[in-house]
Amino acid sequence: MVLALDETDESRAMKVAEDVHDLVDAIKINWPLVLSTSPEMITRLSRLAPVICDFKVADIPNTDRLIVEQVRKRGASGVIVHAFTGADSLKAAVDAAEGMDVFVVTEMSHPGGQEFTAPLAERFAHMAVEAGAAGVIAPATRPERIAKVRSIVGDLLILSPGVGAQGGSASDAVSMGADHVIVGRSIYGAPSPREAAERIVADIRSVKG
Amino acid sequence: MVLALDETDESRAMKVAEDVHDLVDAIKINWPLVLSTSPEMITRLSRLAPVICDFKVADIPNTDRLIVEQVRKRGASGVIVHAFTGADSLKAAVDAAEGMDVFVVTEMSHPGGQEFTAPLAERFAHMAVEAGAAGVIAPATRPERIAKVRSIVGDLLILSPGVGAQGGSASDAVSMGADHVIVGRSIYGAPSPREAAERIVADIRSVKG
Repeated sequence: MVLALDETDESRAMKVAEDVHDLVDAIKINWPLVLSTSPEMITRLSRLAPVICDFKVADIPNTDRLIVEQVRKRGASGVIVHAFTGADSLKAAVDAAEGMDVFVVTEMSHPGGQEFTAPLAERFAHMAVEAGAAGVIAPATRPERIAKVRSIVGDLLILSPGVGAQGGSASDAVSMGADHVIVGRSIYGAPSPREAAERIVADIRSVKG
Repeated sequence: MVLALDETDESRAMKVAEDVHDLVDAIKINWPLVLSTSPEMITRLSRLAPVICDFKVADIPNTDRLIVEQVRKRGASGVIVHAFTGADSLKAAVDAAEGMDVFVVTEMSHPGGQEFTAPLAERFAHMAVEAGAAGVIAPATRPERIAKVRSIVGDLLILSPGVGAQGGSASDAVSMGADHVIVGRSIYGAPSPREAAERIVADIRSVKG
């Protein structure tokens, strides 16, 4: 299970990470935390668990390359990129990763994700395979889509956001083929983040057996 | 003219900004500079000229909102966002801007920009108008596209990257309807950034009359 650490307060973010780091496979952070603190947060959190920078990288090839290089230098183990900026941008990101995992967004779980990303999700999944990405992001809110993405990406990793507060079920997502569910508010917003994380880990174990 | 300050070295970036700040309408920065230094760079550069954060924001509505809020708090005057994450994400970005300018990417100037962004460019331009954005980004490398985008966006601002090192001409872009050209390497990579900036300003003046 991947913790989406969508806090913007430095001390709260560190507190949650320290509380649950041994229960999670990775900690996913996004730009708001970096902008409200500093890129040094990537390095600090990397000492507790592998960090995936959910930066939705979506630029020209040279900029994608520079972003991925900086993320790697800061100590992250993974980075999330968009494919809609084209195969050349995606390739530049994968080439710059040098062992770091690149995850490609297929469709997005919010309503606006239906407008442009959902109709292209399968094509983005194919692009992830062709570019040599480590995995893809597919929404737990639409578990049937995870199964379709799995049929395209073979043994690439599938990470599924939308579990918990957004309505997706961890066990459903895993049983449809997700390798890791991404859980945010249900953990960092809980009275006891550790107890919440333990419950979700148990829910996933009940399916994985 | 907007300076694309695509340096990742803090002292070089500040030196170029200090050299040319009075010649430019704004300084555009991107994630690599923030990741290699800190978000404080937004604030420091804002003391020299209006700063546009070219962050190609492309996330769910709540994350777009948080990114734009943080950019605003750091002192930027503008932010560049994608439209392909849907009308709800774009609206969240515009709503969070509170007077800061939001610019929407139409098509992108690199080869991969032809795959997904170019066919949707006109729709993205319409979305920019509907969302109440301040302007759009359209490539100077394809000046005929600027004229088309102008016909859609009315009096919204058009900013055009791709001038100089990427082959676009400042005067062509302006004569086709761009309000501001975005110039990077031709300035910050020049032996004298100030002389290079002065030449481009003169080139633009020759068209604007």
